[in-house]
Amino acid sequence: MPLGSEDALLARLTRHFPTGHPSLLLGRGDDCAVLRSGGPFCVSADLFLEDVHFRRRYFTPQEAGYKALAVNLSDLAACGARPTAFTLCLGLPPDVDDDWLEGFFEGMGRLAAQQRMVLAGGDLARADKIHVSITVWGDASGPGGFLARGGSMPGDSLFVIGSLGLARVGLAVLEAEGRAALDAWPAACAAHLTPAPQIDAGLTLARAGVNGRPPTLMDVSDGLARDLPRLLGGTAEHGGLGAEIVLPEGLLHPEVVRHARLRRLSPVGQAFLGGEDYALLGACAPDLLPALHAALPGMNTIGTVTATGRVCCNGEPVPENAGFDHFAHPA
Amino acid sequence: MPLGSEDALLARLTRHFPTGHPSLLLGRGDDCAVLRSGGPFCVSADLFLEDVHFRRRYFTPQEAGYKALAVNLSDLAACGARPTAFTLCLGLPPDVDDDWLEGFFEGMGRLAAQQRMVLAGGDLARADKIHVSITVWGDASGPGGFLARGGSMPGDSLFVIGSLGLARVGLAVLEAEGRAALDAWPAACAAHLTPAPQIDAGLTLARAGVNGRPPTLMDVSDGLARDLPRLLGGTAEHGGLGAEIVLPEGLLHPEVVRHARLRRLSPVGQAFLGGEDYALLGACAPDLLPALHAALPGMNTIGTVTATGRVCCNGEPVPENAGFDHFAHPA
Repeated sequence: MPLGSEDALLARLTRHFPTGHPSLLLGRGDDCAVLRSGGPFCVSADLFLEDVHFRRRYFTPQEAGYKALAVNLSDLAACGARPTAFTLCLGLPPDVDDDWLEGFFEGMGRLAAQQRMVLAGGDLARADKIHVSITVWGDASGPGGFLARGGSMPGDSLFVIGSLGLARVGLAVLEAEGRAALDAWPAACAAHLTPAPQIDAGLTLARAGVNGRPPTLMDVSDGLARDLPRLLGGTAEHGGLGAEIVLPEGLLHPEVVRHARLRRLSPVGQAFLGGEDYALLGACAPDLLPALHAALPGMNTIGTVTATGRVCCNGEPVPENAGFDHFAHPA
Repeated sequence: MPLGSEDALLARLTRHFPTGHPSLLLGRGDDCAVLRSGGPFCVSADLFLEDVHFRRRYFTPQEAGYKALAVNLSDLAACGARPTAFTLCLGLPPDVDDDWLEGFFEGMGRLAAQQRMVLAGGDLARADKIHVSITVWGDASGPGGFLARGGSMPGDSLFVIGSLGLARVGLAVLEAEGRAALDAWPAACAAHLTPAPQIDAGLTLARAGVNGRPPTLMDVSDGLARDLPRLLGGTAEHGGLGAEIVLPEGLLHPEVVRHARLRRLSPVGQAFLGGEDYALLGACAPDLLPALHAALPGMNTIGTVTATGRVCCNGEPVPENAGFDHFAHPA
């Protein structure tokens, strides 16, 4: 069934994305939406492109819609912000039909509803491939304000919330086997298809900093090898911070270990390269750890910030820029 | 010269888009930007896609960068908002080189600087064609607040600010002749390549409503025939408002008249169909007109809101949906 007119498509959108929201003064359908604001807000924008970030071959439309929004929410989580609204720009090729779009809106709408976010605007156009571009807003006026990457100090404890390397395994097996891979690699496939944004953990971490030096925080989207130096503000070349990472194999998901062993690779090395995990990575003063571990059972400490200007993992130096560069390695 | 890594590209971006801005608490380079907010803000998002919205064949990179942002600013103008910030998502094919990108950032950066906007974030990825997706926001906390489409009343005067139909002529001649068309159709080509967002006019109109019923306002992006019913909130089928438009040929740009005559078409009819003019269209109580005409020399009254539920232009009824539908007529 071919897509109808722009108006029909907008009617479909409205069914999945209600327009009422406490922070909305003027909803979709005007030139702009108008949002109320109670203070500082966080903003992030991400692309989600067919055959670059996802493939229709093994993403259901629901999963594609879900993930397109989830990767943006991960950025809000990394700032300790509470999601409020988003805009959606959508380029659609002629072979996308009503059923696909219905599923896509359903998957995205369910996540938006769960996070109490309103779709504040967007645009639609024809394109050669499915092209999703989302900008999200979040409220950063809660207790503790927002969290940033900068400000780690030597002696700080490094922690992660979420799996390392699992999404990378999911990508590899889905590319190789399509959805048949879900049988043998269910957790890895889920980590790639429907990553869970760590919004609640981000809010908890923001509150933890309210009476002292707040944690530093970011989301791990390009792998620990590439993202950790970013948290530390650049390492050797900036005469800056380093890290001693202790990443025991026991901390890794069994599917990560099994996948690496099958390929005769180091499970820890693979987890360190990671990519698209959307885990949170942060650092905090060690005296914050007991309260954080109690509030966040999924949190794992993985090492210590140093003043050495270089990153070591299990005693081995890690080369910079070992992770994933969307531009250097086009899909 | 091929593009460098993502980091090199970000360095290039930074040269054209400075990160400091009064409303920015945390700039680019973190997971989110954090913005200060003094009250309600307007949000809009638009796609600007190669071979849908622009062609490299006749857009210089500077013009493409300028227009990608300008079409978004037009939405802020239509709400009477003052631009503050934007996010930029960019998909780039392998045949875009450093020189093209430099020009693109230059054109966009110049407009951003002129409007005192900060680039708050974004994303980059490989794509098959150039894909630009921008979300803008603007401050709506000035005197008069924001303007919306709804609220026109029978007897209100309809007005436009900007040319009608000129950009449509520009598109036609550029498609037919490429940049050679600039010789014979300079104004029409400029209207398509570098449309001027009517930010100052929008702010003036917002202030005009501070002590009474504010004007209604929208930007004409799909042509008057399609957009006027939107301003009126749907016409016949909703038992709603109509309009009597008086559009003398003398109000049209000479290039619009000349182009229609060459094709033996009605200049007024062509101007009414329009498309991508990014003019402002609004309605206000007639007693506001003298002050508005004094403040906005480029404003033209073009008719009156009626209670008839249908739109007439120069005495002829205009069929609904006669304008431009991005989905019904893919480029």
